[in-house]
Amino acid sequence: MRNSTSTEVVAATTKAATAAIVTAATTEVERAGWLRALADVLDANAAELIEIADRESHLGVPRLTGEVARTSGQLRLFADVILEGSYLEVIIDHAEPDAAPPRPDLRRMLRAIGPVAVFAASNFPFAFSVLGGDTASALATGSPVIVKAHPGHEDLSARTAELAIGALRQAGAPDGTLGIVYGMDAGSQLVTDPRIAAASFTGSLRGGRALYDLAAARPAPIPFYGELGSLNPVVITAAAVETRGAELAAGLVGSFTLGVGQFCTKPGVVFVPAGVGAEGAGFEQLVVDALPAPASAPMLDERIASAFAAGMQVIETHASVRVLSAPGSVASGSGSAGPLVGSPRDRLPLVGSPLVGSTTVADLLANADTLLEERFGPFTLLVSYRDASEVIEAIAAIGGSLTGTVHAEATDDIAAITDALARTCGRVLFAGWPTGVSVAWSQNHGGPWPSTTASIHTSVGATAVRRFLRPFAFQSAPANLLPAALRDGNPLGIPRRVDGVLGRA
Amino acid sequence: MRNSTSTEVVAATTKAATAAIVTAATTEVERAGWLRALADVLDANAAELIEIADRESHLGVPRLTGEVARTSGQLRLFADVILEGSYLEVIIDHAEPDAAPPRPDLRRMLRAIGPVAVFAASNFPFAFSVLGGDTASALATGSPVIVKAHPGHEDLSARTAELAIGALRQAGAPDGTLGIVYGMDAGSQLVTDPRIAAASFTGSLRGGRALYDLAAARPAPIPFYGELGSLNPVVITAAAVETRGAELAAGLVGSFTLGVGQFCTKPGVVFVPAGVGAEGAGFEQLVVDALPAPASAPMLDERIASAFAAGMQVIETHASVRVLSAPGSVASGSGSAGPLVGSPRDRLPLVGSPLVGSTTVADLLANADTLLEERFGPFTLLVSYRDASEVIEAIAAIGGSLTGTVHAEATDDIAAITDALARTCGRVLFAGWPTGVSVAWSQNHGGPWPSTTASIHTSVGATAVRRFLRPFAFQSAPANLLPAALRDGNPLGIPRRVDGVLGRA
Repeated sequence: MRNSTSTEVVAATTKAATAAIVTAATTEVERAGWLRALADVLDANAAELIEIADRESHLGVPRLTGEVARTSGQLRLFADVILEGSYLEVIIDHAEPDAAPPRPDLRRMLRAIGPVAVFAASNFPFAFSVLGGDTASALATGSPVIVKAHPGHEDLSARTAELAIGALRQAGAPDGTLGIVYGMDAGSQLVTDPRIAAASFTGSLRGGRALYDLAAARPAPIPFYGELGSLNPVVITAAAVETRGAELAAGLVGSFTLGVGQFCTKPGVVFVPAGVGAEGAGFEQLVVDALPAPASAPMLDERIASAFAAGMQVIETHASVRVLSAPGSVASGSGSAGPLVGSPRDRLPLVGSPLVGSTTVADLLANADTLLEERFGPFTLLVSYRDASEVIEAIAAIGGSLTGTVHAEATDDIAAITDALARTCGRVLFAGWPTGVSVAWSQNHGGPWPSTTASIHTSVGATAVRRFLRPFAFQSAPANLLPAALRDGNPLGIPRRVDGVLGRA
Repeated sequence: MRNSTSTEVVAATTKAATAAIVTAATTEVERAGWLRALADVLDANAAELIEIADRESHLGVPRLTGEVARTSGQLRLFADVILEGSYLEVIIDHAEPDAAPPRPDLRRMLRAIGPVAVFAASNFPFAFSVLGGDTASALATGSPVIVKAHPGHEDLSARTAELAIGALRQAGAPDGTLGIVYGMDAGSQLVTDPRIAAASFTGSLRGGRALYDLAAARPAPIPFYGELGSLNPVVITAAAVETRGAELAAGLVGSFTLGVGQFCTKPGVVFVPAGVGAEGAGFEQLVVDALPAPASAPMLDERIASAFAAGMQVIETHASVRVLSAPGSVASGSGSAGPLVGSPRDRLPLVGSPLVGSTTVADLLANADTLLEERFGPFTLLVSYRDASEVIEAIAAIGGSLTGTVHAEATDDIAAITDALARTCGRVLFAGWPTGVSVAWSQNHGGPWPSTTASIHTSVGATAVRRFLRPFAFQSAPANLLPAALRDGNPLGIPRRVDGVLGRA
């Protein structure tokens, strides 16, 4: 475990604050160059980085290889996004001296918020870490970044930061554009440092809430964009079970066990129709049939494995839950998650095979405290329902989620269920499974509390940049003081609203 | 003083939460109808409302008449804004099954956040009150509003709400779309009520901070958009003093005394060049010459008058401040702000004539605790500077402001000062004065702490709606479940980004 000293944190934020003055004034072309240089250095060093990442996270080379591609692709997308120019949200209203009251010349755009603290996630050592989406979107705006490395992959973080800082220097970014600190104390210090203008976080509800509270309690509070816990409810209709039950069961098992269930979009609660299917066994039996043979799979770290084991202990002994597949290995009891010895590979924290629970809507609501707690790992809870109104009541009880999913047939009327999910979820799917978050212009990875601390923003997709920008207006400014984005004639050729009309004038 | 009971507050939020389900699904055409009906009812009852407002706020009929026009115009602007459709930020990416990894059909838009608590301001009984900008922008999105009336104009608030609720019912809005509560306890209860999804506030740093803290400490925190204190620094160059000193002095006096100095954009600190002008007396003497004869003017309420009197006591006795114009009337001492008796007009809280202080940058920085405190009322502090670097240092010390102003000549190099103001202010002006905030597409009324609690948003102008919207995405949705804004063929004819391209496809 690395730990930055208090002095090192102050040095990092001071450098970032100095850099911020320069980075805020850089052009989109310059910053696109930085982002592409970061993508290139990541791709060029993928083999070395993936080896470190696999040793630290146990996520496996194939998954990590895909994640590096996602991460460098994401950096390149943000380069495209800022060059396109809409992200500046330019609005120009020319003076109307004859209006009552007279209207001055007003020109609005967004500008960089300043140094951002990025708290890296455990489960995405690339895509939500040193060069992940938060860093990419903050740098895209011209806001310097200080990453608080996740303790689960500090060697990877250090090496990635070393490569990235070199690439940024090479690409002309000022010293202090990117920094990194280590350790929980450094993280707390970072979020309370007066030079930090915003913070983003991906992780647990408890950790995120603690940092959110620190950010909100500052003498000068700052925005804190936390992505915390999510149950990601899924609703499956009777018609869907009857038409393609086995396919859905296989898809669900694939989704909740993907990456050993360590995704923020893992489907944690699945509403299934009661009394459907052969002899009424219905969807449950199809899920049991689809489960892989019991096998242990390494989780990210011992803390996570131990928390999952303890959670499964609660589920297995819960009076209102039937366990559909008994866990098959040593780590499923909370007693087995203690320190292990041996070579690095032998020291992998283990976890039992995937676990599926089964309950009813009534029991779920009566035991919301335990059954609606997120279980980070390969567990999902099937909840049998009798009618749509039961599902809608349960969806409201679940509250904010990153995603909601409906599997239905064309003959089903799912408007009311869709509305209920839209009220509490950031993204609603009607095919496929919520794990897998496309990096796209249109993506929304966010949602009402507790899925995020700031439901009006996304942490994935082109619009993630908005978190690190603040609006600013010039009134009656001399032409020579206007930034290019606000000048008459539109020298950057970007989309703008001029005198009420959207276009490229 | 009115006080809503706890039961009344719960009744209001419960009605708003029920209404929210309906209002979130209304069309832009329906909501534009509500906003225009509100504008019409305000205009139609202006005479009655202005009479109540003048009795309660002492702002005078001419000013209040203008404010009503501004407020109804603002309601109509938000109707135009939502009909135009850009505010939905629609982004559609069609499926790309052959991409690696395959990309699903994803369609993003913004949707109403839910019931909003609006805390009305003392100094704008119309424009920042029951039917002010916060209410207009929240209703525009389809978010119901509960106004916490300002104690300074409760009769006006009650009558406005009565008229507005009637107009909304007439226009087809569901019961609960607008509500009102009274009293400080009701306000605290409102911001912590689990049915409230966001809050906005215009008022003092202390009051806003207390409510912000309550919002942030909730089990499920909500966004709190507070517009708090602002010093609104002004920088005047030597060349400007020499060229048009008398005109600038008259403009400054007009601005800092407008509305008895009770504007959030009042210029509170004015940097003036040292040793300029006839016999070195410079700009100070021009300001003294421009001051009106000592006269008392009624302030909004006794609490405000009393705080201003106490503040002036501090200024007048401050070792580092020279007072340029002695106050001429009874209320300038803190002892004179006690309860008065008599008829309503006689009970007006009085305040002394405008006060101007003078100090230097060095003294300002050495006494930042007292001299950089916002003084709500007709006071401004002239700060003489020797060079630009002194000004830039002082601007950084002032911190977040709604506005910054530079008065310079074409021959001046003000790039560095402009940059310094842009870093800490939400709007920078190069002509005119900061009082007077145009309601326009391009307006930005916001800024870094302490001018607001949420610097990435504005509370005036078309983009103020963004505070009450959260993004939401549909993935692989059947066409019949898509809202009109997201359908292929663009039935609403609104601006959208489709497969990366901005247009009306």
